[in-house]
Amino acid sequence: MNKQKIIGVIGAGDAGEEDLKLAQAVGEDIALRGYTLLCGGMGGVMEAACRGAKSQHGTTIGILPGNSKEDSNPYIDYPIVTGMGHGRNVIVAGSSDAIIAIGGSFGTLSEIAFALRLEIPIIGLKTWDVSSNIKKAQTPEQAVKLAIGLIGSNT
Amino acid sequence: MNKQKIIGVIGAGDAGEEDLKLAQAVGEDIALRGYTLLCGGMGGVMEAACRGAKSQHGTTIGILPGNSKEDSNPYIDYPIVTGMGHGRNVIVAGSSDAIIAIGGSFGTLSEIAFALRLEIPIIGLKTWDVSSNIKKAQTPEQAVKLAIGLIGSNT
Amino acid sequence: MNKQKIIGVIGAGDAGEEDLKLAQAVGEDIALRGYTLLCGGMGGVMEAACRGAKSQHGTTIGILPGNSKEDSNPYIDYPIVTGMGHGRNVIVAGSSDAIIAIGGSFGTLSEIAFALRLEIPIIGLKTWDVSSNIKKAQTPEQAVKLAIGLIGSNT
Amino acid sequence: MNKQKIIGVIGAGDAGEEDLKLAQAVGEDIALRGYTLLCGGMGGVMEAACRGAKSQHGTTIGILPGNSKEDSNPYIDYPIVTGMGHGRNVIVAGSSDAIIAIGGSFGTLSEIAFALRLEIPIIGLKTWDVSSNIKKAQTPEQAVKLAIGLIGSNT
Repeated sequence: MNKQKIIGVIGAGDAGEEDLKLAQAVGEDIALRGYTLLCGGMGGVMEAACRGAKSQHGTTIGILPGNSKEDSNPYIDYPIVTGMGHGRNVIVAGSSDAIIAIGGSFGTLSEIAFALRLEIPIIGLKTWDVSSNIKKAQTPEQAVKLAIGLIGSNT
Repeated sequence: MNKQKIIGVIGAGDAGEEDLKLAQAVGEDIALRGYTLLCGGMGGVMEAACRGAKSQHGTTIGILPGNSKEDSNPYIDYPIVTGMGHGRNVIVAGSSDAIIAIGGSFGTLSEIAFALRLEIPIIGLKTWDVSSNIKKAQTPEQAVKLAIGLIGSNT
Repeated sequence: MNKQKIIGVIGAGDAGEEDLKLAQAVGEDIALRGYTLLCGGMGGVMEAACRGAKSQHGTTIGILPGNSKEDSNPYIDYPIVTGMGHGRNVIVAGSSDAIIAIGGSFGTLSEIAFALRLEIPIIGLKTWDVSSNIKKAQTPEQAVKLAIGLIGSNT
Repeated sequence: MNKQKIIGVIGAGDAGEEDLKLAQAVGEDIALRGYTLLCGGMGGVMEAACRGAKSQHGTTIGILPGNSKEDSNPYIDYPIVTGMGHGRNVIVAGSSDAIIAIGGSFGTLSEIAFALRLEIPIIGLKTWDVSSNIKKAQTPEQAVKLAIGLIGSNT
């Protein structure tokens, strides 16, 4: 009996091409290394990361803001329906063993703030620079490697 | 790409022997038939159902009231940390494609009420009799069969 | 410095004439006796109770499910915006020193369940009969009197 | 019938002397000008602001993280009990017509992020500098004046 280790990926629902490429590569790498990917379940960075993870046969969890599983992106295995709007951001942060933040909007900033408050490790890829506790990565591979280094192996 | 279909199991954290046996058998049957089990992640009926599911190599999700994954029962694969106390009950109800209610405390009643409000199918095993929309089952096998009949196959 | 004592009024957003009359009379009496009325902030029983309270120059708080103060009924002094949908029901229950339940839908039942779980006194006026811990009242005046008897004077 | 206009005050639960003085002066000025003060209901900046408001016979609302009104600071008139931990921060942000942020921890940062996301005006007094949408004030009086200028008179 072992809890699966979860890496959260956070970023904007409407992101630019560069962020989407980073997110997809992060998702691929999380899956390849055998970790579960959790996100806010919607589009943009969230969808790109899940698409990457599913392309490598990974597992994905989406913490949805709305009331319907139909609203989730198509790469979510386990849609969690909160109906709590932005309030679900604290669940995204709290349910991750480590978080990789990519680019980011104000919603992403709220998740970073909660993660810092809850002392959950954060890796940043071109994201908000609000604390020295956010470890900076230069590439998706480095981001995933840093995250895994902080949470240990998934066994 | 297919969302996994989820059957929620709800019931008291401190339940009697009979309810625990029912819960374990329900969990076993959910796993044997290839569905994911979701619950509130704690002890009693929740733990018994998860123990049953894991004994058959099923998958389990726990929507935790507290702030720590350490508080979940040992049979949870994916602990979702809400920090929202009883407020997490609406997430348990909303994230289930169908719900099996076993026995039950006031917390269970709140989940039944949310499920009725959200029009999520409920099967009852010796639980609150507050609506004709709760389908009554006599055995764990019948409960799982009724649930699956309402949500369809998991493919 | 004294916290104001709060009496919650819960009931359906679409209620029949009889329930609306009961709610308005309950609201009037809460205000006349100097207590603050709290509710879910929307229409039906909630609006009728607030209309009654404001007709007697009382104070009203609405715990709103949505994201906008514009959605509240026009008799709310202090709109609290949760954006949490039905999840706000646990806040309605938890923030009341005593609750008067009038008629009721499944949403009301979830609030009653939370109040029972949180051991908050409930008075019922033609509402769900799910526990002997719900004290039954025959008239609005009796309901408010029972509530005040349980929580004491507001000084 | 008019909704009362609400100014939120956010800041750390354990703040330094300077922040506490700023918060008390902000609270006094909010009350003197006839607005309602809303905060997270706990200590530090929240308590200092409420103490200031009550010294001028203002009205205060506390959105509490825990399950008990006993946990609120002694200057709260209307304690709202969420039981949702840090998740209540989105309610603090969403329920304010304008927000004054003083100093600040990661919890404050999450509230600022939500306010920016929800497009609620923010005035900053020596706080997080994460967006040009945060209007900077140099004194408590200026902060309250800026807030009132953005939300209009309370009638």
